[in-house]
Parts: sequence; structure tokens; C-alpha cells
Amino acid sequence: MQMKNKKIGNQTVKLDNPPKIISTHSIVGPKEGEGPLSEYFDDILNDDMLGKESFEKAESEMMFTAISQALKKGNLKETDIDYLFSGDLLNQIISSSFAAREFSIPFFGLYGACSTMSESLSLASIIMDGGFAKYVVAATSSHFSSAERQFRFPLEYGSQRPATAQWTVTGSGALVLGHEGNYPEITYVTTGKVKDYGQKDANNMGAAMAPAAADTIVNHFKDTGRKPEDYDIIATGDLGVIGRELADKLIEDFGYNIRNQHIDCGEIIFDNEKQNTLSGGSGCGCSAVVFTGYLYKRLMKKEIKRVLLVSTGALMSTTSSLQGETIPGIAHAVAIEMNSN
Amino acid sequence: MQMKNKKIGNQTVKLDNPPKIISTHSIVGPKEGEGPLSEYFDDILNDDMLGKESFEKAESEMMFTAISQALKKGNLKETDIDYLFSGDLLNQIISSSFAAREFSIPFFGLYGACSTMSESLSLASIIMDGGFAKYVVAATSSHFSSAERQFRFPLEYGSQRPATAQWTVTGSGALVLGHEGNYPEITYVTTGKVKDYGQKDANNMGAAMAPAAADTIVNHFKDTGRKPEDYDIIATGDLGVIGRELADKLIEDFGYNIRNQHIDCGEIIFDNEKQNTLSGGSGCGCSAVVFTGYLYKRLMKKEIKRVLLVSTGALMSTTSSLQGETIPGIAHAVAIEMNSN
Repeated sequence: MQMKNKKIGNQTVKLDNPPKIISTHSIVGPKEGEGPLSEYFDDILNDDMLGKESFEKAESEMMFTAISQALKKGNLKETDIDYLFSGDLLNQIISSSFAAREFSIPFFGLYGACSTMSESLSLASIIMDGGFAKYVVAATSSHFSSAERQFRFPLEYGSQRPATAQWTVTGSGALVLGHEGNYPEITYVTTGKVKDYGQKDANNMGAAMAPAAADTIVNHFKDTGRKPEDYDIIATGDLGVIGRELADKLIEDFGYNIRNQHIDCGEIIFDNEKQNTLSGGSGCGCSAVVFTGYLYKRLMKKEIKRVLLVSTGALMSTTSSLQGETIPGIAHAVAIEMNSN
Repeated sequence: MQMKNKKIGNQTVKLDNPPKIISTHSIVGPKEGEGPLSEYFDDILNDDMLGKESFEKAESEMMFTAISQALKKGNLKETDIDYLFSGDLLNQIISSSFAAREFSIPFFGLYGACSTMSESLSLASIIMDGGFAKYVVAATSSHFSSAERQFRFPLEYGSQRPATAQWTVTGSGALVLGHEGNYPEITYVTTGKVKDYGQKDANNMGAAMAPAAADTIVNHFKDTGRKPEDYDIIATGDLGVIGRELADKLIEDFGYNIRNQHIDCGEIIFDNEKQNTLSGGSGCGCSAVVFTGYLYKRLMKKEIKRVLLVSTGALMSTTSSLQGETIPGIAHAVAIEMNSN
């Protein structure tokens, strides 16, 4: 049997029946709501506990809300949705599993650290393009307080943070893929490999993830034949100020200059100087809300036409760090395009 | 644009270009090697530390070995593989990420607790059937000692275990999917929803997962029109002795009797009385090594022709349990068939 292979180059697939992002929802905490992208978010919380008794339950509730609202905007019921792809930073991805418990939707749980938005979007797009589904939801979340106490220290310690540190975003983003209507389309999916250049400092994750981001972006160009100027925006998330600089340099070594197109979701979600967020935002929720809020709305308004979303993840745990392991990184790229007609 | 939808019923897709399992590898610890399935495993370790300095590093090394050996048996190099799907029980799935770091293969990290073998096999099969890949690897692992200290107590405490408790399997299984040759094929994928019936006891996870297993199996029958007797074996994993009984009863309430076909990977991997494993084995590695060892080899010998593999996961964390949450469960089913010619 001769099958058409949709793979092009080493790491990319071209979607011949490109799924469309028919609705999105972004929900953020109070601090994110005071940042420069404020006007683009759908929900800004006054209380980052959402009336719940723990940070973890609050995070799961945020994701539940993001998914519910994205369905509502798409005029869809949960029974219309074929699959839910979701993951988050918490141990055993409880934010996702407990949110998924509230929906009667077949569920694939993912873990890609802060790369989860483009990981879930990649798999959702592939399953749509292959004709396995009519509607799919991709979602992710993070919460400053649940992440801080799981990965670093209880907030009550008041630990000092080095300048390279990033600030975990409190937020959740969900999007619904469908086949109809005039919406941004997913055209290419470039899946990342795990890259490890020996970085060990969990307070400098941008440096750990930059090589993975550079590798995926360069391979996206090689596989597709596209160039940086084919995109209006190449959005990594979340390298922060320091990691973004490093990624740009690494990519330059491969002969591509993406500085004119490159924004980093972690760098732009806060006013890092005024808001004391040091190298910028991080967490699965960061690229999720920057995409579903800021970038999606600009695509819909046709202010921009082609975005390459490259969420990046640092794949360590507190145990691996305590055991002296370095921090492997990964980045997945998804090309999203708004037709001109 | 009119697309063919491969979805049948509510939760199932039918694979029109069924991928084939062209090679597998199973590796287990010493205790599993003394159990009733001993002769079917490819590698039995004398030392469950594999010469490493921590249980976590040992677990990752097991997965690395399982993947490497499965590639070798398939006469494939890592560069031949389009995607690796993998996950495990450890926080931030470090066994998988650190194993994936050693391969230059695009990587999708998953978390489905002990449902990971059929979750990774589901996504790998869908991506193959859709024409996105020539070869895909699906893998998972668990390790008694890394799981015990992460989820329960340090081994040094010598905690007593109730009769409903299960014993985490030390083992890893990997399999390679391709399109050519006379090998077992994946024909249907039924994706589970998160089910929660309010069970709270982390020492009785079989009871927490039984409703999810029952729901997925019943929906598989409804979606495909198949009956229990269409399968030689319906293999859940890992409900253990107690959860298996409960699942059989729940399925009977829906009008299906699967007792003649039903085995549970957790129940059969150990001699539970002699080996003091109480309700049976558990862990992502359990259904992984029972499938890649025992069931795959019996399929290849044509002793059995149709297997429904239904790995089951309990989606809690220590944090969710301490916060008084119940334990949601999930189960994914994959139909695997050996042609008679």
C-alpha cells in the first residue's frame, strides 16, 4: 500500500486540510492584568484564588473556565468536541486532569513543561488534519503560587530571586479547532527534539531552553524552505529577556536573522522593570494567554497574517536538579496563518 | 471541503491504514523476572539500579534500553523514527525526558499515569494512520522504588501495606510502529474520558480506575459493534485483583460479560500470594511489559489473534490527595489484531 507521507524534511508536517482556530479564551491573574497586554485578555481575575481553598484548585478552575468559555464562543457543546489535549506544570498534571473530569470529552494528558501550548496545538492540529475529529480543544495553564511552592520555595520564605529568574504567569488559555469559517489556519507543525547543553541553574531556564528553540526554528526554516521574513511574528515562549537574546545569537550562527520578527511571550507579558519580573514571565500559561489573547486577536483583525508560535519547555524536576542533572529543553513550532480573503 | 471522518460512534476511530507493531522490547526488574511471565520478558535485570546512583536515573536508563533494543530488533536507526511518544509516573516525567534526550527524535511527552502505554500507542497509531510518519516509537516505564518514595513513603520507613494495595512494577516497554510486514495491526483506538466516582483511598487505586475501564470498554463495544467474544483477550492494566472484579461487575450492568476474555496485567504479572504483591502489580511499566512481552509474543505466534489493550490510569497526585480530592481515573483502549495469512 502506497501512502502519501505528509512529513517534509526532518521534523515538520504540512497540513493539507489545515484546521482553523475557531475560538479562543484567555484568563489571567491580577498581575498579568496590570501588564502591557491587559486589553487583549478576555478575563482578568481580581482574586487569583477564584474563591477556592488552594492554589492548585484555583489553577484547575482557571483551565475549566478557559475551556468552557472557548466552547461557548464557538457555539459548541462539550459533546461536539472529539478530543481534549491538555497539560500543565503541576505534578501529575492535576490542573488538567481535574479540569478534564468536569467535561465528558475524550482526553489526552500531555507533559511538555512550558512547551505545552504548542505541543497540545500540534497534536490537536495533526488529529484534525488526519480526519479523526471535527472539533478539538487544546489548553494549558500555570499559576504563580502553585508553581512557586512546587518547584522552588513556599512563598512565605520570601526567597530572593536572581536577575535571570522568570515569573510564572497565572493564566490559562484554551482554543477550539474546527474546519469551517474564516479563521486563522494551522499550516505546518515542526516537532522539537530534546536538547541539553549542560545548563544546571533552575533560575536561568531561558538559557536552558534557548538551544531547543533555536534548533526547532532553524529546522522549521530548513524543512519548509521558509525564511524569517515569511512571518510577521515569530513568538517564542518563554525564554525571557536573557534567553531570547541567546536564541537570536544561536539562530544567527545557522545563517538566519530573526530579530525583526522575534518576540518572546515571557518578555512582553509584563513590564519587567516596573513589575519587578526580572527576565520576564514563564509557565505553560504564558505563551497560552499571549497566543489566545494578544496574537489570535491581532490575526483575526488581520493586523498580522503569519505567526510561528514556538512554546519552549524546560524538562527538569526538583528531583533531577537535586540529583545534579542538567536541564534539557524542548520547543515545538506551529505555523498559524490568516487568509487575506 | 468534504473530509472523511474516521470517527465512529462517540470515542472511537477506525484506522483505515492500520499501522503494524514491527518490534517490541520489554525489560523488567528481578522481582518481575521471578513471576509467572518470566519466560516472555526480553531482559531481566539482576540489579534494579542498573549501576546508576539513583532509582530515578535507573528508571530512565531502563526506558533508554527498551527503546534502543526495540529499534535494533526493527533494524532501524534513530534517524528513521519520525516521533517518540512517551510518559511515566515521575514528577515532570523525567524518566521519559531524560531518555528522549539521548535520541535525536521529535518527542511528544505524555502523562496518563498507568494508562500511558495505551495512550502513547493510541497517538502513535493515529499519527501513523494519518500519513504523518513512517515509523513511530511508543514507550513507558515505572520503577517500584522511585514511585514508592515519590507517591507514598521512603522505603526505609518499612510502612505496612493494606490488602488492596498494588505493587509498582519495575519495568519498561517500547514498541515500534511501521507500515510493512506480517505483524500485529492496530485497527481501532477508543479514547477514554476522565471518570471519578468519589474514591479517595490511594491504596485502592483499582477501585478508582475500574469505572473508567468499564466506561471505555463498553463504549468500545457500542462504537464498533463488537462483542466480548470478538476478542481472544481483553487486557486491562492495572486494576489488580479487586479492581478487575469490580470492572467485570460494572460492565455486566451494561449488558456485556467479559469474564471469559478479561485478564488484568496487574493481576497476572506476579504470583500475588507467593510474591506478597497483594492486589497485584501497577505502574505504567506493568501493562507495557505485559503487552510488549507476553501478549505481543503470543500474537506473533498466532496463539491469540485479537487483543483489546486497555491501560488504566489514576490521575491523582500526593498534593491532590492531601487536599482531600477524590481520585479520577482514565482508560484508553487499542485493538490489536494478527492477520491469519
